Amino acid sequence: MDKIKIGMIGLGTVGSGVLKTLANFEQIEIIKIAVKNLNKQRNIDNLDKSILTDNPYEIVNNPEIQIIIEVVGGIEPAFDLIKTAIKNGKHVVTANKELLAKHGEELFLFAEQYNKVVLYEAAIAGGIPIIMPIKTILTGNKITKIAAILNGTTNYILTKMDVNQASYESILKEAQELGYAEGDPTGDVEGFDAAYKIATLSTIAFNKRINIQNIYREGISKIQADDMKYANEFGFKIKLIALAQLDEKGNADVRVHPMLVKKSKSLAHIDYVTNAITIEGHPVGEIMFSGPGAGEFPTASSVVGDVLAIATELTTTDYPLPMMRCHHETTAKMLDISETSNKYYLSVNTKNKVGVIASLGRIFAQNNISISSLLQKGLKADNTANIVVITEQCLEKDMQNAIKSMKNDECINAINSLIRVME
Amino acid sequence: MDKIKIGMIGLGTVGSGVLKTLANFEQIEIIKIAVKNLNKQRNIDNLDKSILTDNPYEIVNNPEIQIIIEVVGGIEPAFDLIKTAIKNGKHVVTANKELLAKHGEELFLFAEQYNKVVLYEAAIAGGIPIIMPIKTILTGNKITKIAAILNGTTNYILTKMDVNQASYESILKEAQELGYAEGDPTGDVEGFDAAYKIATLSTIAFNKRINIQNIYREGISKIQADDMKYANEFGFKIKLIALAQLDEKGNADVRVHPMLVKKSKSLAHIDYVTNAITIEGHPVGEIMFSGPGAGEFPTASSVVGDVLAIATELTTTDYPLPMMRCHHETTAKMLDISETSNKYYLSVNTKNKVGVIASLGRIFAQNNISISSLLQKGLKADNTANIVVITEQCLEKDMQNAIKSMKNDECINAINSLIRVME
Repeated sequence: MDKIKIGMIGLGTVGSGVLKTLANFEQIEIIKIAVKNLNKQRNIDNLDKSILTDNPYEIVNNPEIQIIIEVVGGIEPAFDLIKTAIKNGKHVVTANKELLAKHGEELFLFAEQYNKVVLYEAAIAGGIPIIMPIKTILTGNKITKIAAILNGTTNYILTKMDVNQASYESILKEAQELGYAEGDPTGDVEGFDAAYKIATLSTIAFNKRINIQNIYREGISKIQADDMKYANEFGFKIKLIALAQLDEKGNADVRVHPMLVKKSKSLAHIDYVTNAITIEGHPVGEIMFSGPGAGEFPTASSVVGDVLAIATELTTTDYPLPMMRCHHETTAKMLDISETSNKYYLSVNTKNKVGVIASLGRIFAQNNISISSLLQKGLKADNTANIVVITEQCLEKDMQNAIKSMKNDECINAINSLIRVME
Repeated sequence: MDKIKIGMIGLGTVGSGVLKTLANFEQIEIIKIAVKNLNKQRNIDNLDKSILTDNPYEIVNNPEIQIIIEVVGGIEPAFDLIKTAIKNGKHVVTANKELLAKHGEELFLFAEQYNKVVLYEAAIAGGIPIIMPIKTILTGNKITKIAAILNGTTNYILTKMDVNQASYESILKEAQELGYAEGDPTGDVEGFDAAYKIATLSTIAFNKRINIQNIYREGISKIQADDMKYANEFGFKIKLIALAQLDEKGNADVRVHPMLVKKSKSLAHIDYVTNAITIEGHPVGEIMFSGPGAGEFPTASSVVGDVLAIATELTTTDYPLPMMRCHHETTAKMLDISETSNKYYLSVNTKNKVGVIASLGRIFAQNNISISSLLQKGLKADNTANIVVITEQCLEKDMQNAIKSMKNDECINAINSLIRVME
């Protein structure tokens, strides 16, 4: 039997893992790889340099190639390369979360026109199988909620802040030195990376398009060492959570922000660079998938799984499986963050003055917010007090109004932190 | 388009969940269900009693039916019914773990002869997707280890023994009253159920047949409240673990027995009736799947996922996917438990006498066993002492020889417990 011929665009960390892994599969042959720099030293045994090119269009225009693997990331030239490949009759495997989040629908429609598939297990949670399970064995379910840890860098930072009782700044610096965080960490720490992933994941889980622009996003850079300490005292860990919920009316609520997660929840125990995804649906109930969310080999596992799925299809029929189609006809109506309902952890700094608690209590009551727990531990050296409150479920807009009132209250010096709570 | 016609054998807990769930899928129609008792009251809204029969052969011989769902369990008549259905051109979805473990290979070969598929996601770990992920997106991996909690009844009992600091007998009784354990609990508590599941799971993970007769099996009925207490002090939880390992020579080591699981492991935190499966392989690394391992709706999720996969195939091509084939040409060479290497927790009761520790230490040393931790907490009311030891890695046969020597040692009254350890 003829070998299936593959072209790969990109030979960085993930590309290297894919090349090494596909070497074990006789039915598959990588015949061309596009790289940025032909002369770069690469840590790959027996690399045949004659298959390298610095022109990726040599790959997408090569008539011999049946499947292209795109592992460069970013919008352009990746998008044009993938579209050209599809137009030229190739199936696509990609790990490009940003492209999927911003242009997924356009890409899937384009692929359908040409009867080609685009698979992307590696784009979400690295080595953890999640896209294919949702699109195959879980397809009988109505999924109504996803709560996930989808970014290893921020989970590493939050875990280390907790374990070392250290500040965000000091741990970020350490993570950058270890290579767990980039020089400009914005994409990770401000939640962009997790937002890209939950956009695509919730789209396939809810079978409705979730627009990345409508995803509320808040990063971890304002979390303080004190918040970690108080969270622990109340029985929580702080995690950056990607959350997607579908209410009975079909409204989607999709967001990325830090949350206090109750220690009885499995997600609270997902530490360091591990990722995890919990899915709630009917009839399955709640299930969780966890594992390495990034890295050379784990991500290669997902790319290779997708390549082998297409290879299997190519050897049995000319038509891709319907289960592999990913375009969604309807766009979800999405709730604005102000319309959502949450529990909150609030830390405020107050004056040492008679009536502070009364004043706080009045503001909460005026905004229909019930208090679940409250903690004040003596006075600080500067004669101010930190008061920490955990509320019952209340409307985000009521909480924002309460915050406004607090800012105008003469007893309250500052709002230290406002973090949503998962119980 | 014509509806896909289904016949179901069995309408117990799982069958009811399947019937209720498939009602949401217009492309599928259950046209006949075999039950034991036609007159039994059933908690199913709008059940059309005219589709019930008490003769299951009416289903497997019905020429209209394209897929049969078997949810009665046991070897016969299930095996003959499934074979008859296949012979008559039907695909099969089954939740029958015992049949798969004992006759899986025969069944898969038979199905291949007739170009039909047998899917069985529901047979292992209820609602948790595990079979299809291994056979699709993880197929690029060489899986070398599975460690899993596959039986909800025993996990419930062990969790409650730990939480309530109670005896096995008292919690078993409570579990029976709550319906979590059967009147004759042997199949669960002695590890038969978990052994059936790990037989099939390791067969597909290792791509080699694992014979159920060669799986070492030990239940939880000898675990004592004291063992739970000591395990906690050493930083462990006790779980019934289904373990499957493949060494570099290709030897398989597959077994079911209680283990002390280090609290830093995710498996240690899988409580009550939840199931979990960890998989180690290359390139993926270690991943975990957890969720409800039984129950009406979770199990229905897996049955329906399999049915929809076949339905998709039936509407696109006459040939089943190669990924769905499950017969394995080679049988694994299996290690006997005596050849395996483990860490152990050992609890012994000794006389209050000079030289007890020296005597124990001598027996360990003579059998090449190093001690990692040792605990003796004073004397008991009867003037004896309990000594608890955790060893370093050593050979099972060395440990068994050490136990023999201890039984002949005049300082040692009794071996309370010997439990293997996972760190």
